[in-house]
Amino acid sequence: MAILSDVATEVLIPIAAIIGIGFSIAQWVLVARVKLAPSQPGASRSKDGYGDSLIEEEEGLNDHNVVAKCAEIQNAIAEGATSFLFTEYQYVGVFMSIFAVVIFLFLGSVEGFSTKTHPCTYSKDKECKPALFNALFSTVSFLLGAITSVVSGFLGMKIATYANARTTLEARKGVGKAFITAFRSGAVMGFLLASNGLLVLYIAINLFKMYYGDDWEGLFESITGYGLGGSSMALFGRVGGGIYTKAADVGADLVGKVERNIPEDDPRNPAVIADNVGDNVGDIAGMGSDLFGSYAESSCAALVVASISSFGINHDFTGMCYPLLVSSMGIIVCLITTLFATDFFEIKAVKEIEPSLKKQLIISTALMTVGIALVSWLALPYKFTIFNFGEQKEVTNWGLFLCVSIGLWAGLIIGYVTEYYTSNAYSPVQDVADACRTGAATNVIFGLALGYKSVIIPIFAIALGIYVSFTIAAMYGIAVAALGMLSTIATGLSIDAYGPISDNAGGIAEMAGMSHRIRERTDALDAAGNTTAAIGKGFAIGSAALVSLALFGAFVSRAGVKVVDVLSPKVIIGLIVGAMLPYWFSAMTMKSVGSAALKMVEEVRRQFNTIPGLMEGTGKPDYANCVKISTDASIKQMIPPGALVMLTPLIVGTLFGVQTLSGVLAGALVSGVQVAISASNTGGAWDNAKKYIEAGASEHARSLGPKGSDCHKAAVIGDTIGDPLKDTSGPSLNILIKLMAVESLVFAPFFATHGGILFKLF
Amino acid sequence: MAILSDVATEVLIPIAAIIGIGFSIAQWVLVARVKLAPSQPGASRSKDGYGDSLIEEEEGLNDHNVVAKCAEIQNAIAEGATSFLFTEYQYVGVFMSIFAVVIFLFLGSVEGFSTKTHPCTYSKDKECKPALFNALFSTVSFLLGAITSVVSGFLGMKIATYANARTTLEARKGVGKAFITAFRSGAVMGFLLASNGLLVLYIAINLFKMYYGDDWEGLFESITGYGLGGSSMALFGRVGGGIYTKAADVGADLVGKVERNIPEDDPRNPAVIADNVGDNVGDIAGMGSDLFGSYAESSCAALVVASISSFGINHDFTGMCYPLLVSSMGIIVCLITTLFATDFFEIKAVKEIEPSLKKQLIISTALMTVGIALVSWLALPYKFTIFNFGEQKEVTNWGLFLCVSIGLWAGLIIGYVTEYYTSNAYSPVQDVADACRTGAATNVIFGLALGYKSVIIPIFAIALGIYVSFTIAAMYGIAVAALGMLSTIATGLSIDAYGPISDNAGGIAEMAGMSHRIRERTDALDAAGNTTAAIGKGFAIGSAALVSLALFGAFVSRAGVKVVDVLSPKVIIGLIVGAMLPYWFSAMTMKSVGSAALKMVEEVRRQFNTIPGLMEGTGKPDYANCVKISTDASIKQMIPPGALVMLTPLIVGTLFGVQTLSGVLAGALVSGVQVAISASNTGGAWDNAKKYIEAGASEHARSLGPKGSDCHKAAVIGDTIGDPLKDTSGPSLNILIKLMAVESLVFAPFFATHGGILFKLF
Repeated sequence: MAILSDVATEVLIPIAAIIGIGFSIAQWVLVARVKLAPSQPGASRSKDGYGDSLIEEEEGLNDHNVVAKCAEIQNAIAEGATSFLFTEYQYVGVFMSIFAVVIFLFLGSVEGFSTKTHPCTYSKDKECKPALFNALFSTVSFLLGAITSVVSGFLGMKIATYANARTTLEARKGVGKAFITAFRSGAVMGFLLASNGLLVLYIAINLFKMYYGDDWEGLFESITGYGLGGSSMALFGRVGGGIYTKAADVGADLVGKVERNIPEDDPRNPAVIADNVGDNVGDIAGMGSDLFGSYAESSCAALVVASISSFGINHDFTGMCYPLLVSSMGIIVCLITTLFATDFFEIKAVKEIEPSLKKQLIISTALMTVGIALVSWLALPYKFTIFNFGEQKEVTNWGLFLCVSIGLWAGLIIGYVTEYYTSNAYSPVQDVADACRTGAATNVIFGLALGYKSVIIPIFAIALGIYVSFTIAAMYGIAVAALGMLSTIATGLSIDAYGPISDNAGGIAEMAGMSHRIRERTDALDAAGNTTAAIGKGFAIGSAALVSLALFGAFVSRAGVKVVDVLSPKVIIGLIVGAMLPYWFSAMTMKSVGSAALKMVEEVRRQFNTIPGLMEGTGKPDYANCVKISTDASIKQMIPPGALVMLTPLIVGTLFGVQTLSGVLAGALVSGVQVAISASNTGGAWDNAKKYIEAGASEHARSLGPKGSDCHKAAVIGDTIGDPLKDTSGPSLNILIKLMAVESLVFAPFFATHGGILFKLF
Repeated sequence: MAILSDVATEVLIPIAAIIGIGFSIAQWVLVARVKLAPSQPGASRSKDGYGDSLIEEEEGLNDHNVVAKCAEIQNAIAEGATSFLFTEYQYVGVFMSIFAVVIFLFLGSVEGFSTKTHPCTYSKDKECKPALFNALFSTVSFLLGAITSVVSGFLGMKIATYANARTTLEARKGVGKAFITAFRSGAVMGFLLASNGLLVLYIAINLFKMYYGDDWEGLFESITGYGLGGSSMALFGRVGGGIYTKAADVGADLVGKVERNIPEDDPRNPAVIADNVGDNVGDIAGMGSDLFGSYAESSCAALVVASISSFGINHDFTGMCYPLLVSSMGIIVCLITTLFATDFFEIKAVKEIEPSLKKQLIISTALMTVGIALVSWLALPYKFTIFNFGEQKEVTNWGLFLCVSIGLWAGLIIGYVTEYYTSNAYSPVQDVADACRTGAATNVIFGLALGYKSVIIPIFAIALGIYVSFTIAAMYGIAVAALGMLSTIATGLSIDAYGPISDNAGGIAEMAGMSHRIRERTDALDAAGNTTAAIGKGFAIGSAALVSLALFGAFVSRAGVKVVDVLSPKVIIGLIVGAMLPYWFSAMTMKSVGSAALKMVEEVRRQFNTIPGLMEGTGKPDYANCVKISTDASIKQMIPPGALVMLTPLIVGTLFGVQTLSGVLAGALVSGVQVAISASNTGGAWDNAKKYIEAGASEHARSLGPKGSDCHKAAVIGDTIGDPLKDTSGPSLNILIKLMAVESLVFAPFFATHGGILFKLF
């Protein structure tokens, strides 16, 4: 019925993924042209004229020592990050293996490990594969998701540590050059992850189909393991990386900036390498895994819901692959969008950076709207049927277009609101900065109030998105709305990854002893990066809300739940306990950062007090010890919050059953979204309030500064408090709400048959 | 069927209330024996031997100047408080009058202002009164509730400002004397409020019955207006008072303690009177109104649910009055409990204060358990029937006993957990204090984590309470569980009011220039008061959760809602927006405190800079200006958060209908409880961490101190941040969740007939 034939779909999806990977490699080649080995700089560039324009200043271009120093620092950061990630992956690997066994045993037990087929639930005329094999394939796709997530995070980190020193070196030639290098590097990561995620999922579906054949219910049910794997890995990545980076950051700041009055990233600070490593393992690898997880989950949620729609029952492959086609279109649209930042226009001044990044969001959203219309027209029949908790619902292709678009545009709104509340170009952050006049306490009070307030519009946007897409196409509508929000993920990741790369570039400039001007340029890149990072988190949280609701819908469908009634005691206790979980989780992660930071502070103080000549720059700090403290703390402390999230659905589902579990999921969703948004915006606002005072770009800002004034000190305290909020607790929470939902979905058959032991006993 | 006859019930309830009032007057007489006029102190006391024991030290007993000074300061505080409350009541009065009209018009319109009777919903054989008269009586009971709330708050304030200087004077004779004076004054307030609330409600029921006669449905429906009135008034009281007290407190601390290094309550600080007035209007009047509101709402919720049970249908007056009988028993039990603190045992040392207050909780809970058993045995038939959303449920009297008891004991658990997390005798607060070593940032991070963590056990306790009481007796079970938690309200209020009275006593001692020893004694009383205040807030929040759930249940019953399905888009958007409301509300209140504090800081700084000799003690500060700033700020800024809470149910119900409104109520409930508990415990912990460092009672504490050290400064910053959290946002949130629920209940008939305009249009 759709215009696009099944064969065309089979071909187009991998082609889009391969184009994305190719584009990513092309960007990498461009970044790689910046040579880190001391040689004739500019030689290769002069050939094609690349780099002839926009050279604002050639500073120390022939200083081989600086290049060598940068290379050395980059190596130290890359080594630290690689070694941490390997350690992390080892520990998480053990956990994931055990969990894989749990998945197999729990799901296998649904039909008592029988190997007999049974009639399908929705297509009564077809035979479905036995639960034992679903268990096996779920386990396989779980591991596949986890491995893809690891690869995503690891590659992201590699690219970032490859690009940071190169950005520093380019900063010598002007802010435009540095921006393009950082942005291209971000794009390498963005496109690689988006394309890789799509390709692996596509291949997995095709391989699984060889076994499942006609049994699409079983096929797409077991594919949900992919989302669970991706998200579980992301949880540990975000939490572990988040604790690592913030322990180092807080520790370095408290002694360096506050006590010793030395600048950020000063090479005399023993925690400085750990801090820069942290940016790569937390903000880059953690975020890469996180957004990959969101992408995988939203795709899986859409697929599993579609598998019991008319697409699944009629075996309409093109219709079934609509979510993947939307993502494929997303890659192409983002590719074009990227060219706007790197090739069509050029950044000439600092003040153009933020508008340029923001333009990326608008361009990608506008183009993608057209793209979605195209895909909806080509890939969907005019009318099709969706199952909604037992009832049928007729949906048109234009209705579904509306669902995807509303998700996409809700994302843009959330992005803009986040920017408004976290960028120091607007009054909210300036008010927070102004509150520093009366000290750290009022700064914190205003910052908290700002975070709370910043929740309002995003929640209305999400609520509107939910209402419209649910009304049009039930849970499938919500799933594709989430997908719509994430369809421009490649661009989102590019501008997100750009931030930590610029941050690191600044660190390297400082440590390599480069001039004040270079540092100013990287700082300008970084300030814009702070805002884009907040926008990225806004997207991640918004999409997490939609994804988790879609997964929740898929879960109740699969568990055979018809109604989740708030007026039933089983549900209401789930709701209230679920709403508490984000607090429990945040308590753990905040405390972990606090404790690790305390240890870091003590170590840094010890080194300053015992290593002779450290403050004078003649003694050499022991960087490795600080790296070790961060590593040990994060590895040890990521386990309890990780276990809380992973075990809650299992325990609740097994002991209290699907009704209470539904309550827990809904409660965690509605409460977690608020905590996550407010935490990450509060943190972003404090950071930029501090930067506002430091930069002194306006009359008002200068009246609060300069660096080192009482106002500035108060701002630094706020910034430090915000660190764990915006980079550890906040962003981990969106994984919490998604992960619990996808886990419930995967285990739904088990809970439906064996769950609720406690209520059965009494 | 019950042992207790209807006549006995009619007599016993007012007797209990009158006994409570009598006891309250007796305590007041004892407090009044401390003479504020300079005369022969001790003259009247020697007659009956009262005061012969426990006189640790007679210090300055004959110093007439000190007494005169105390009286003068007390007058200044009392005048400030009275004038603020009058201004507040004027503004709120206008709002309440408008709202009364809204109630009448909305409810009157349900049957198009018809004056015809109609068959009752549940007792089909009876004729029920027309909606127009229900509207009228609801409006009357609304105003009655509001006036009772005003009287409660105002009397509380009067008593507190009467007692504070007397406590200071008694502190000259030792900590035991001062404790008894402060505690007795608290008891005056506690018993007066509890008894008054019960008596007014009882009289209102009896008066309304004269009109309603057989129509108990209409009677108890219109009585719910009493809860709405009480709670609306409480909202403004809490928010207005909270902004007042914290603007003054934060402003005074930021300049006085942090910048000028003068002690708390130093008379040179221009904001000192405003700060002390704030304690009385915020912590005393606000809290009095708040707990009265809780009490009124839980009684109304229980009554309205009971009116459609077999009690209501069979016109079993004693069974119907079970909630009032439980409260009557509560007054008697609390009376006995109070004697344990004031007469049976005596406080001899500082370290006995906190245990003595804690003992009050255990004694009252243990005695009340017996009391509930007695009431359940005497007043209830062995078996009766409850309606549960259309279904009938058989309940035994022992089942209902269990419901009330589980609420009571859940309250005790919440109280103890709160104490554990906010008292500096335990490790959580000590850890927070320890985090001050590395500055304010880690202090704040640890404090926030502590608040988040402190949510866990209370939520489990509430969830267990909900599950058990709901399973036994549906929504009636939850309503009586809430009533159980509040049954010892007289004791709760006594120990709650004791805190601010001690705080004020310390302030007066400082301002009157009394010796360091006196101040140490009042500080010790105050530290214990901080913990009991936190416990009181824990009770208030826990009971608010139960009350609001019961009201929610009554609302859905009355609106004819059978199912509130999370899987419906109307409900889920309500849920997520409802969960956002506490954040919106907190953003407003926090920002208000912040802005008002900024103004206060500027004024205090201005006075220090412009009034000659102020720091030296020769110039006189302009207290009135600071009082004015607090007054203006709080009056102006209490309107927006108040309007948010009052208008949300009206707007949502009218535009989106009862399903979405149900979602909003459930969302606000499950999210608001978490925010409220964590905010108030975080604030309490910071306050006591600071006190821990100041008191230096252990090796560890001394290593962090003394006053004025860097650690202490970091602790003061935490304390200041905590002020609006624990005294403005946190405690107001429990009113938010209750008030929206009771308002929905009152307007339920309107929403059920005319609501959901927006969905009807599209």
